[in-house]
Amino acid sequence: MALVMLPVVAQQQFTLEDLNFGGKNYRKMIAKNRSLMWWGDQLIRKSGDTCWTVNVANGKEKVLFTTDKLNKRAGLTADSLQVAMIESFPYADQPLVKAWSDTERMLVNFKTGKVVWHQPNDFAVQAMEWNEKSRATAFVKDDNLFVTDGAGNTRQVTTDGSRDLVYGQSVHRNEFGIEGGLFWNPQGTRLAFYRMDQSMVTDYPLINVPELDDSTQVIATPAPEKYPMAGQTSHLVTVGVLDVATGDTVYLKAGDPTDRYFSNISWNPDGNIVYVMEGNRDQNVVDLVAYDAVTGNRVASIYHEAHPKYVEPQHPITFLPWDKEKFIMWSEKDGYNHLYLYDVKGKQVKQLTSGNWVVMDMLGFDTDRQSVIISANAESPIQQNLYRVDVSTGEMTRIDEGGRGWHTGRLSASGHYLIDNYQEPDVPRNIAIVDTRKNTQFRYFTAPDPWQGYTVPEYRCGTIKAADDSTDLYYRMVMPVDFDPAKKYPTVVYVYGGPHAHNVDVRWHYGSRSWETYMAQRGYLLFILDNRGSENRGRDFEQATFRHLGQVEMQDQMRGVDFLRTLNYVDTARLGVHGWSFGGFMTISLMTNYPDVFKVGVAGGPVIDWKWYEVMYGERYMDTPQTNPEGYEQTSLLSKAANLKGRLQIIIGLNDPTVVPQHAYSFLKACIAAGTQPDFYVYPGQGHNMMGHQSVHLHERITRYFDDYLK
Amino acid sequence: MALVMLPVVAQQQFTLEDLNFGGKNYRKMIAKNRSLMWWGDQLIRKSGDTCWTVNVANGKEKVLFTTDKLNKRAGLTADSLQVAMIESFPYADQPLVKAWSDTERMLVNFKTGKVVWHQPNDFAVQAMEWNEKSRATAFVKDDNLFVTDGAGNTRQVTTDGSRDLVYGQSVHRNEFGIEGGLFWNPQGTRLAFYRMDQSMVTDYPLINVPELDDSTQVIATPAPEKYPMAGQTSHLVTVGVLDVATGDTVYLKAGDPTDRYFSNISWNPDGNIVYVMEGNRDQNVVDLVAYDAVTGNRVASIYHEAHPKYVEPQHPITFLPWDKEKFIMWSEKDGYNHLYLYDVKGKQVKQLTSGNWVVMDMLGFDTDRQSVIISANAESPIQQNLYRVDVSTGEMTRIDEGGRGWHTGRLSASGHYLIDNYQEPDVPRNIAIVDTRKNTQFRYFTAPDPWQGYTVPEYRCGTIKAADDSTDLYYRMVMPVDFDPAKKYPTVVYVYGGPHAHNVDVRWHYGSRSWETYMAQRGYLLFILDNRGSENRGRDFEQATFRHLGQVEMQDQMRGVDFLRTLNYVDTARLGVHGWSFGGFMTISLMTNYPDVFKVGVAGGPVIDWKWYEVMYGERYMDTPQTNPEGYEQTSLLSKAANLKGRLQIIIGLNDPTVVPQHAYSFLKACIAAGTQPDFYVYPGQGHNMMGHQSVHLHERITRYFDDYLK
Repeated sequence: MALVMLPVVAQQQFTLEDLNFGGKNYRKMIAKNRSLMWWGDQLIRKSGDTCWTVNVANGKEKVLFTTDKLNKRAGLTADSLQVAMIESFPYADQPLVKAWSDTERMLVNFKTGKVVWHQPNDFAVQAMEWNEKSRATAFVKDDNLFVTDGAGNTRQVTTDGSRDLVYGQSVHRNEFGIEGGLFWNPQGTRLAFYRMDQSMVTDYPLINVPELDDSTQVIATPAPEKYPMAGQTSHLVTVGVLDVATGDTVYLKAGDPTDRYFSNISWNPDGNIVYVMEGNRDQNVVDLVAYDAVTGNRVASIYHEAHPKYVEPQHPITFLPWDKEKFIMWSEKDGYNHLYLYDVKGKQVKQLTSGNWVVMDMLGFDTDRQSVIISANAESPIQQNLYRVDVSTGEMTRIDEGGRGWHTGRLSASGHYLIDNYQEPDVPRNIAIVDTRKNTQFRYFTAPDPWQGYTVPEYRCGTIKAADDSTDLYYRMVMPVDFDPAKKYPTVVYVYGGPHAHNVDVRWHYGSRSWETYMAQRGYLLFILDNRGSENRGRDFEQATFRHLGQVEMQDQMRGVDFLRTLNYVDTARLGVHGWSFGGFMTISLMTNYPDVFKVGVAGGPVIDWKWYEVMYGERYMDTPQTNPEGYEQTSLLSKAANLKGRLQIIIGLNDPTVVPQHAYSFLKACIAAGTQPDFYVYPGQGHNMMGHQSVHLHERITRYFDDYLK
Repeated sequence: MALVMLPVVAQQQFTLEDLNFGGKNYRKMIAKNRSLMWWGDQLIRKSGDTCWTVNVANGKEKVLFTTDKLNKRAGLTADSLQVAMIESFPYADQPLVKAWSDTERMLVNFKTGKVVWHQPNDFAVQAMEWNEKSRATAFVKDDNLFVTDGAGNTRQVTTDGSRDLVYGQSVHRNEFGIEGGLFWNPQGTRLAFYRMDQSMVTDYPLINVPELDDSTQVIATPAPEKYPMAGQTSHLVTVGVLDVATGDTVYLKAGDPTDRYFSNISWNPDGNIVYVMEGNRDQNVVDLVAYDAVTGNRVASIYHEAHPKYVEPQHPITFLPWDKEKFIMWSEKDGYNHLYLYDVKGKQVKQLTSGNWVVMDMLGFDTDRQSVIISANAESPIQQNLYRVDVSTGEMTRIDEGGRGWHTGRLSASGHYLIDNYQEPDVPRNIAIVDTRKNTQFRYFTAPDPWQGYTVPEYRCGTIKAADDSTDLYYRMVMPVDFDPAKKYPTVVYVYGGPHAHNVDVRWHYGSRSWETYMAQRGYLLFILDNRGSENRGRDFEQATFRHLGQVEMQDQMRGVDFLRTLNYVDTARLGVHGWSFGGFMTISLMTNYPDVFKVGVAGGPVIDWKWYEVMYGERYMDTPQTNPEGYEQTSLLSKAANLKGRLQIIIGLNDPTVVPQHAYSFLKACIAAGTQPDFYVYPGQGHNMMGHQSVHLHERITRYFDDYLK
């Protein structure tokens, strides 16, 4: 009898420093990527101080320049003009790279080494937008708007900016797709900008606790945050247009801005008409209005949309590069987010895309073939694929590599080439270069498995029926490591559940958050279900929750629990739930509505009562406390405080400006009054989410809580 | 063989509703008391709406009046004058009772039923003082000072009162024995009052979360609290004197008030000299200064005391009733708190009391026998007994009933009679009436054991040596119910440890807090030790902690742990610690300095770094961060956050104006940065201590934490 010695490869165990965002080893535990950008149709790869050209047909790379050599060749010895960071190659037909030094922004000819343009780079600005045509820069500093023209002349546009009067920055709390407040016309000669008067908005009294290493500040200080709550007085937004040459500003003559939303600002190709999507406070009617950029006069309302629940346009119109009279408009009006072709008179030329799926992104155009390149989930609700859509025929062709995965694209200037960066459940990351005309894909990069050598759990995905008994809902399940179907495992439901988000898709490990893997390693089973109300499933799927947030969502999540009950290896006596933000609201909703189902919960940044949430998001889904008192009452967790039976830890950031601490505090008050005992933790100085290494601490904390009470 | 059926008396189990302050059954679980007061030398008992006379020799009671009958007899039919609450019998020689109606304060002749004086009773006042001689009332309303003279004429004394400029209220954050800011002269013709300019003091940004039942307030509001931190700019206090007849106010000409303390305000018998104890910011020098009440001029400094560590006078001077030229002064200058006789020129006539014990209270005088009645711990450091001290001979005679207990007294007008209300370790409450001349005691009331029928643990008391190997420290031990010395019990050290307080004395159950009994019922052993730094043991005992708070205290507490290690029934592997305020500071200090000793801790309202505590208390014991950087560094818990190993829950009131939330928040920050995991809880709307029924919730919370992790 021989004793066979098998070589034992010790599988490594994950730590939160490996798995968690902000962890010490996190960067080497995520799939490698490539930093790619387009210089016209020339693919450029950047790494460290080197830029390579990449051959789109075969991936062959050639050094274009290194910043070190570029600086030497250019004789850029002064610190102020030494290229420190490459930003982009903005001109398809010129060898110019946009770059930063420590103090300047500049355009450098990387063939001659000549600095052809530069302006100061002020890191103290609150917002900045540059226009590549005119090379003018708009920026906000000390609350006021300034513009530096291409020749370097700076003009102060406003003087009365303040915390109350906000210029050139995001308004409506970043809802309606708003990300900024400075909008150049294509020529860079006129600038549209937001002006927000929030002097009438109440402050939420946040406080700043001094940094431990700040010896100059002894006592905590107020950090008031303008926070218009549902049903309360909101701010007033107007749109100004500056003529850079004359310095004149006109405000669009949109009438009284009270209780109105102004979003999706865009320009016509000639740069003399501004388009604004105007919505009412109830968010059930929108109009696309054209304004004369010179006079501010209203030209016409060219589009109108209404819905008994709500409409929420998220994308500005985009003109066809080959036809100044036509633009593409996004709308959910047929029930799914699709693209429509309109002319400037407001006539619908055609619906470009259609079907029971949604367009997720518009990447650009191929002018030669008059097509638009988009991403959409036409194959499956949990995929994202890339397509070319012929504008005249509406023909849609998938152009990404493979097909099952989650593909994000970046289009070259002409639209002839596309970077297809994608994941699949068992693919950490591939990058293919697509020739959009030939519809051929060249595999440029295949990331190695960053978890090689570690004990990795099994990730499963499937569907169950929603509580309406007909809608498919997607779930992800992370199996405990060394899974044994004869055992019974403590199980944690992770939930978000709110609009504009989803958890389950076909990215690597079905989009599993790395904490789930950590928990699986510790012997838990994780279950994640995208209930009705979440994104990418069409209007009615999302709007099922209207005026009673959390209710339909809970019904669906309980179908998930019903499903778990069918699995012998799930120990339903040890069921936990965890979620953040809307998921925190869901967690407490589930803990208090189903106190005998969930034994342990951890709720982060939870909404407790929608009357304390802000007007834009809150009223869209809930209307106002005045018009929907039953809905607010039904969804409020204050009256549910007495139901709490299991162990519930609530965690917030002390400086959370999104779900303000009043929510958690008031729930604690209600529990104290009712004699129930939630646990609580706060991250001072942190906002709605814990940043950097504090996220590791947070997840150690969450894990410990389940270990203490569920394991 | 006969089966003997023994009657089983089921012993009742305590709940927190029984034991805890604010609990639903708490009132019936504490020893019954009698509401007694003096009308001259006539003892009066009050209960509900009835007042009885009580015969001091035999306790026989006779109804003096009922408010119901008094109202009827007086024809007090108007609500405004119906006697609702009896306050006192202020005139020894007149049958007048001071009482309130819902809206009036009044003097009623209870023999004739005539209302001889009344004035409006404004519940909105911020402070109020009445003088029985002139029947004038001083009060503060809307931040300003008003005086109503005996005839009912009201004068507004100040007009510039505000949050910044505080009149007639306590100053120096209630340190130095200060409890109010209005001081009548004996005649009630002149009023001394505090004025505090705190405009230069930083605000701590507390916030108010709206009450859950307040529908008028939606969003949380700032509740800034003037909070001068150690080493920072403090407020400016001056003392005004109002002449009621003329309405003229003079301010005492005390010079620049910057960095000075003004305390212990009193009057000479003639009511024309004001005495103020003036201290420097360093609190190591005080002067008793006399001022002319008419001119405000400084008359003389008649007493000076200094100490290298600190001096902290807590008691105003008191003139002898029989000699307008002599007063009694309290001082720790010989090492213990004793009484001294001084003349108005500042000459020390004699030391009235002396010995290695302290005077705790001065109850009044017996003019006939020229003696002063005091309470003191002359028998034992953990007792409080009552004594008559002959002013001329210094002879001291104990006059209370029994002797081992904790006696508090209330003296009749002449000093001939004394109510002796006391507890002993096995006496819930007795009340004896003392004839101070005969030194005889009549037992008037014996409270029944309110815990009859409950399972009560054993309470033990003893001494161990301090870490200096010589000083005796007193401890209390609460034994687990059904104590079995062969078992090993989880043990919780309850600690306060700071100055001006003690935990162990000979009151009922050695002063045991009722939560200790609750824990003993759950199978814990409780250990409580008064370390050096605590009160009633003399100056050096207290001042051992100077400039390094917590250090000597911890050494002593660790001697307590050494003692526990000698007890076989203490499971030192399951050692917990709990304390509040200074005790919270001690708890975290012990958890982080001895991380292998204490497994579980609960720290309430803890100081984390003395640089964030207020100047009056903080600088007395710690000097300033500028002058004692080593001491602040040594005692700060921020640098100890990394040491945390056991389970520590920190609990605060969100509105704590004493130890502001910044302490706990900063410790959390330090722990997050260090990767340690304390737990945390907050009571929104609560201050430094949890009030009412929230205290029950709190103690359920504390108990659960030990149950979770120590049991």
